[in-house]
Amino acid sequence: MGTSLMEAYQQAKYPLLGHGKRDVQVLKEALEHADGDMASDMYGTGAVIEAYQVKMAELLGKEASVFFPSGTMAQQIALRIWADRAGSKQVAYHPLCHLEIHEKDGLKVLHGLEPVLLADQSRPVRLRDIAELKEDVACVLLELPQREIGGQLPPYEELESISRLCKERGIKLHLDGARLFEVLPYYGKTAVEVCALFDSVYISVYKGIGGIAGAILAGDLDFMEEAKPWKRRHGGDLISLYPYILAADYYMERRLPKMERYYREAVELAEMFNGCEGVRTLPEMPVSNMFHVFFEASKEKAEAVLAEVAIETGVGLARVLQDGGEAGCKYEVSLGDLYADIPRVTLAEAFRLLERKLRE
Amino acid sequence: MGTSLMEAYQQAKYPLLGHGKRDVQVLKEALEHADGDMASDMYGTGAVIEAYQVKMAELLGKEASVFFPSGTMAQQIALRIWADRAGSKQVAYHPLCHLEIHEKDGLKVLHGLEPVLLADQSRPVRLRDIAELKEDVACVLLELPQREIGGQLPPYEELESISRLCKERGIKLHLDGARLFEVLPYYGKTAVEVCALFDSVYISVYKGIGGIAGAILAGDLDFMEEAKPWKRRHGGDLISLYPYILAADYYMERRLPKMERYYREAVELAEMFNGCEGVRTLPEMPVSNMFHVFFEASKEKAEAVLAEVAIETGVGLARVLQDGGEAGCKYEVSLGDLYADIPRVTLAEAFRLLERKLRE
Repeated sequence: MGTSLMEAYQQAKYPLLGHGKRDVQVLKEALEHADGDMASDMYGTGAVIEAYQVKMAELLGKEASVFFPSGTMAQQIALRIWADRAGSKQVAYHPLCHLEIHEKDGLKVLHGLEPVLLADQSRPVRLRDIAELKEDVACVLLELPQREIGGQLPPYEELESISRLCKERGIKLHLDGARLFEVLPYYGKTAVEVCALFDSVYISVYKGIGGIAGAILAGDLDFMEEAKPWKRRHGGDLISLYPYILAADYYMERRLPKMERYYREAVELAEMFNGCEGVRTLPEMPVSNMFHVFFEASKEKAEAVLAEVAIETGVGLARVLQDGGEAGCKYEVSLGDLYADIPRVTLAEAFRLLERKLRE
Repeated sequence: MGTSLMEAYQQAKYPLLGHGKRDVQVLKEALEHADGDMASDMYGTGAVIEAYQVKMAELLGKEASVFFPSGTMAQQIALRIWADRAGSKQVAYHPLCHLEIHEKDGLKVLHGLEPVLLADQSRPVRLRDIAELKEDVACVLLELPQREIGGQLPPYEELESISRLCKERGIKLHLDGARLFEVLPYYGKTAVEVCALFDSVYISVYKGIGGIAGAILAGDLDFMEEAKPWKRRHGGDLISLYPYILAADYYMERRLPKMERYYREAVELAEMFNGCEGVRTLPEMPVSNMFHVFFEASKEKAEAVLAEVAIETGVGLARVLQDGGEAGCKYEVSLGDLYADIPRVTLAEAFRLLERKLRE
């Protein structure tokens, strides 16, 4: 019995994924930079939450924003508001949308909404999917990048066309921007420019930003005012959300300027994977800090090889793999602060070993 | 224009309510005692959340418990589970129940449940209210103590009778124990003894305990397993809840042993208020760390007097008053760590001044 891949990754000198360990130190560091005399927020009011909400609204180019404990809560509420306003129960999104596969059907069970699925599991939503919509949907949700298929994006011009089409047809367009900041370097656009194409926007503060938890929902003033009682109904209007807000603000300041670097590094790293026989990435050329890696080898084989690579070179490429049966196996790469710490020569050595071991 | 009551309270040397300021230092202090290497919880799993849930289940004498970001979320979910199991939409509670007046009707709007109101706004729920219930309710929620009426309690023997009656009639009994630990000294019972009378139990970690935010829901293993997907649906299954959990654990250790003291002090303080002409408390003899104070004087008069008392003696008795029109005005007292810091002679002086100024 060799070391498991998870163990090998955890012991590796150069783990490659994300910003590092999600441990209590992450919060401690953010709080060291916070003033102890600062008053807690109180059920959605107070300087700490209000200032952050104004800052995020400005960053996203929207009239207002509200901090939520989770994106799950923020997005269900956004779709509910658009559905109520349109008098329709139907909303449209991708079959691998977070609301469809990770939320235990909260949207359907708590809000009675009926999703119409756009595109299919192999590709992102395109303009034609919306043009061909027969249902009278209140809202279309677009996830940029589409995480479950490696983080794929439509071309920016097509995004503009989708936005125009939705406006013409009276359909609200909502952005699942869990990883919005991560795609801006590829699009070469500001958050304000991208968000202007959408009626409402959700962003996560703990993906590329690397905060503790939490989400921002942004939109017009009346939309955001309508979101607040829903936040209360969901049980999300906590007496104090400041631990998440302070961490979000602290890490955002440090990491938004690095999004371009994470993206360039993802492109570089994907090229190394695609240079190995029996390995490919999706997208082949990443459009953000993330991509999926596919191995032709079985899960058992690939796990053993990746564990050996971690032990022999110190480079932890993967933590856990997903079985694809006949098709081999895969996992998700999402880059953050850690990648830049790996010496180039060590990384090259890791890939040489990976290729050799996979061939054995 | 004199100093407002709120300003006078904030500047007072001896503010009397609660544990002190709800500022960022509260979290900083808890984290100073936490190990930075400790891993974050991950969507409800991991040592930090699991250990706390086991500890709380044991403290409450239940098979299992789940940590929630809020009591609003925990209680809606508890009632939903009992309602689904009973195949009834009806649940019964007091007209001033938190779910009825503070949650923007989440229970009705998100879960489609129909509350049956027990007793009336002047008194807590009694055995006869449940005996006379004609509706086929799935669950009765009892709040101990009933906060909005000064923190009143039924006698313990009556609680036992209510529990027996509910069992006989196949009605589940849920405890809104936001302030459960605060009533144990009066009842002279352990948390395990009181919770044994209930099928499910919610407690808050930021009332008497003085944490940052969060709640525990406890019950049988199958009930708690059923609660987890609901927590996900509500958007409460955050990637990291540890900031709230670490603070809850830290302050609980320090404050559970003081609940007896807070209760005795509330009895003492209420007696001082009742000794003033034109002032009375509800209950006259507190049964926990809390009570309501009623002034015959108008809100304007009482505010001016309380502000003067704070400025002249340094004792901040009240932060803000609620207008009762013809009936004068009132506010809520909830005692914590601060009361013990007030010198006896200063407090006596404050009450002498209060009585004199109210008479002027």
